[in-house]
Amino acid sequence: MKITIAEIADLVDGTVEGNEKEYIHGPAKIEEAGSGELTFLANMKYEKYIYETQASAVLVDKSFTPKNQLDTTLIRVNNVYQAVGSLLKQFEQNITVAEGIDNTAFVSDSAKVANTASIGAMAYIAEDVEIGEHVVIHPHVYIGKNVKIDQHTVLLPGVRIMHDCEIGARCTIHSNAVIGSDGFGFAQDEQGEFSKLSQTGNVRIYDDVEIGAATTIDRATMGSTVIEKGVKIDNQVQIAHNVVIGKNTAIAAQAGIAGSTKIGPNCLLGGQVGIVGHIEIDEGTQIQAQSGVASSTKKTGRRLYGTPALDYNDYLRSYVAFSKLPSQLRKIQEMEDRIHDLEAKLKD
Amino acid sequence: MKITIAEIADLVDGTVEGNEKEYIHGPAKIEEAGSGELTFLANMKYEKYIYETQASAVLVDKSFTPKNQLDTTLIRVNNVYQAVGSLLKQFEQNITVAEGIDNTAFVSDSAKVANTASIGAMAYIAEDVEIGEHVVIHPHVYIGKNVKIDQHTVLLPGVRIMHDCEIGARCTIHSNAVIGSDGFGFAQDEQGEFSKLSQTGNVRIYDDVEIGAATTIDRATMGSTVIEKGVKIDNQVQIAHNVVIGKNTAIAAQAGIAGSTKIGPNCLLGGQVGIVGHIEIDEGTQIQAQSGVASSTKKTGRRLYGTPALDYNDYLRSYVAFSKLPSQLRKIQEMEDRIHDLEAKLKD
Amino acid sequence: MKITIAEIADLVDGTVEGNEKEYIHGPAKIEEAGSGELTFLANMKYEKYIYETQASAVLVDKSFTPKNQLDTTLIRVNNVYQAVGSLLKQFEQNITVAEGIDNTAFVSDSAKVANTASIGAMAYIAEDVEIGEHVVIHPHVYIGKNVKIDQHTVLLPGVRIMHDCEIGARCTIHSNAVIGSDGFGFAQDEQGEFSKLSQTGNVRIYDDVEIGAATTIDRATMGSTVIEKGVKIDNQVQIAHNVVIGKNTAIAAQAGIAGSTKIGPNCLLGGQVGIVGHIEIDEGTQIQAQSGVASSTKKTGRRLYGTPALDYNDYLRSYVAFSKLPSQLRKIQEMEDRIHDLEAKLKD
Repeated sequence: MKITIAEIADLVDGTVEGNEKEYIHGPAKIEEAGSGELTFLANMKYEKYIYETQASAVLVDKSFTPKNQLDTTLIRVNNVYQAVGSLLKQFEQNITVAEGIDNTAFVSDSAKVANTASIGAMAYIAEDVEIGEHVVIHPHVYIGKNVKIDQHTVLLPGVRIMHDCEIGARCTIHSNAVIGSDGFGFAQDEQGEFSKLSQTGNVRIYDDVEIGAATTIDRATMGSTVIEKGVKIDNQVQIAHNVVIGKNTAIAAQAGIAGSTKIGPNCLLGGQVGIVGHIEIDEGTQIQAQSGVASSTKKTGRRLYGTPALDYNDYLRSYVAFSKLPSQLRKIQEMEDRIHDLEAKLKD
Repeated sequence: MKITIAEIADLVDGTVEGNEKEYIHGPAKIEEAGSGELTFLANMKYEKYIYETQASAVLVDKSFTPKNQLDTTLIRVNNVYQAVGSLLKQFEQNITVAEGIDNTAFVSDSAKVANTASIGAMAYIAEDVEIGEHVVIHPHVYIGKNVKIDQHTVLLPGVRIMHDCEIGARCTIHSNAVIGSDGFGFAQDEQGEFSKLSQTGNVRIYDDVEIGAATTIDRATMGSTVIEKGVKIDNQVQIAHNVVIGKNTAIAAQAGIAGSTKIGPNCLLGGQVGIVGHIEIDEGTQIQAQSGVASSTKKTGRRLYGTPALDYNDYLRSYVAFSKLPSQLRKIQEMEDRIHDLEAKLKD
Repeated sequence: MKITIAEIADLVDGTVEGNEKEYIHGPAKIEEAGSGELTFLANMKYEKYIYETQASAVLVDKSFTPKNQLDTTLIRVNNVYQAVGSLLKQFEQNITVAEGIDNTAFVSDSAKVANTASIGAMAYIAEDVEIGEHVVIHPHVYIGKNVKIDQHTVLLPGVRIMHDCEIGARCTIHSNAVIGSDGFGFAQDEQGEFSKLSQTGNVRIYDDVEIGAATTIDRATMGSTVIEKGVKIDNQVQIAHNVVIGKNTAIAAQAGIAGSTKIGPNCLLGGQVGIVGHIEIDEGTQIQAQSGVASSTKKTGRRLYGTPALDYNDYLRSYVAFSKLPSQLRKIQEMEDRIHDLEAKLKD
């Protein structure tokens, strides 16, 4: 691929400062980019690199004011990340599976597969499955009985979609994710022995959802575990039975959400966050990485931190005090001695 | 499936209050159930829903006393969860793999597969494997050399059982779990380079164990990593080499147990709990989610919380104090000033 | 296998105290070993077992001084763990895949597979892949377009290597690990909707790296996510886009490292550690299990603990103080009362 800087600026509605006729052949990181490459500056932590980059062009924010001399061409845009996103798609080499059904795949006679769908090698499609237009099923994918997958969804290698689950349109599910595993539900008798509670529900994933590699989402005991439209879930996230994740919420890697909890829309959950079962997290809540949320949050847009989670600033203030505790405890002891001395003097 | 409320009450040894002749066609959650559906009330947090439910019948505890008017039929039972469990099995749609060996599976000539076992499509069964009666191996499962799997065990799609491991009867292992991966053991030389310690042991899983999706259990360096009878393990749990998990212990999602640690019977480990290596956790210990246990617990039935873990109530009390620290530190400063003033006055 | 104690001592450059002519047929743990078995004592926590072991021989450190009578033969060595490691390799039963390409594997016509490589049953090798000498690809492995795998590397069942990634020589990647999944990168518009940033980079894994079961390593947005030579990564670790892990660093299970962070060489990360994105961890840093690192560490060889992480000893001291907080807060209240009384008396 070869494209001029002027053409790139056109694609992202940007304005050029410098040589707009130079050719670009690919993207690179700002600290590594060389001649003929395009890079970007979005996070100002990396600003120092723009003064030394060999890149032929750099995408920057409209408001960017250089502090030093620049040897590169600038393309000024409204939103650097969005511009990068749309450009990378131009550069991206498509990973495609050939249209049609690979002859090493198993597809049940009762499955309905759209003509434009692709079923990769050694995939397994069980009875009564419905697969929509332009769906791409990579090799080694398992799709259980009665699953429905809407158009333009992509399942990467080793994904397992268990029976009865429903996946919306334009979703991407990454390698080795498991959708519809049994919920973790047991009844315990007096001898401490567990007997399994059947998990007869399913998982419903709405449109435009992305699910990371090795993430697991359990089916509901009854009814549905629900992932609403536009939710983005990172790798190795665990979502238990009957959880509901609201629209456009993002969940970072290794977070876990226990059974029957409802997460509102537009929330951000940091990595390794844990949320107990049977609570509700209100719209727009932001939860700092590694926090443990133990009770419902009934105020929109809160920011939480700690285990159990407090308001973000409260936790940080308490944690600063925590780091001073050893000296403060010595001070308390010393103050007590001084009080004791004062009391003794007053007795005299 | 269609069954009367009277017949359901019979199955769970319950007593009916209301119209016992109505037909039920399936289960549903209490907040979603409609006419012709059966639901249940076990956790009193959901009591409000029973007064507005459209369900035709609700399973409740023998002792349940309604606070308001009810429009539904009650089925009173001794243990709601157990009743639900046994009923769901009636409603459950079986997920079966056809009996016999799928012709796309690979089964070594030296493997012994019982006649009533099922081997799904594209499964791999290595040399000298033994598979018992009524075992169900789903598609894409890998079973290494010399593995033994006892009767009625079910392995879901993508499970990997590595060489020499032994799995008991009536176990369920969910999708993409890995049993018998190498333990994480290395010797480091003076240059900081690691050389691998061979991991020649195996994993022994006893009867009636359930193991969640994407869980990993490492083989022992020598001897066996042991999961005793009736243990229930959730998704994405990590169990290191030479660990022993005692009978009827339950481990929630994303917990991790480091090498050579022994967990007693009847313990409950919360989600994301971490336990260091080479310690012993006594029988009946309950560990709160996200806690980190750094030393052995030699008292039966303790409840732990925090990192490193303290007694549950001690942690909570300390944490309440932690949340007050900023104001307490200000108070200490103020008290010191007052002591200083008192000392000055007494000098006069 | 049968070998005399004298021959074993020879292999590990050790000296024998006892009957060097006895035959050994296998290794065992010290608390379980019987006659004809070899065991070892490296961690002195297990010393008591050496006085009661039935093992025919025990590997011990050169400096080991028994406190009681011994009934077993000792083999004294410089480094017990290294000796055990090299011996276990002698005892280890090889898990091999037959050389050549299994006829149920798919290998693209444009892939280059060395003659001495092994491609297991139902593996998938995409276009333009290069596979080096003596590489072993187990069943159910997926290798995407344009991947390069250097000599003597072993991929266990269910591993997914996505397009464009590069794997060095003598690496081991355990079952169901995913290398080269998309980084978690999205741009959010004013309506809160996310649009995906294309992830066009790759993952580069250098020589002698070991990667645990179900671990996930995301490809770079641009450029490479880099795992340097000799790095050892345990199970269920998450490594985000554009991370760099320095030479000979070891990472325990369930740790997670967010995007663009650089970890120096010779670091040790405990289990369930979390590290935020865009920071640098200096050489030789040791991070205690479950800690959360939120800022760069610019001093070599630090030891960290807590969330957010403090110096190890500072955290422990603060935590001891934390555990005393309830009584200290009562003391503060009591001291305040005493100050109040003193002030009242002085007013009189």
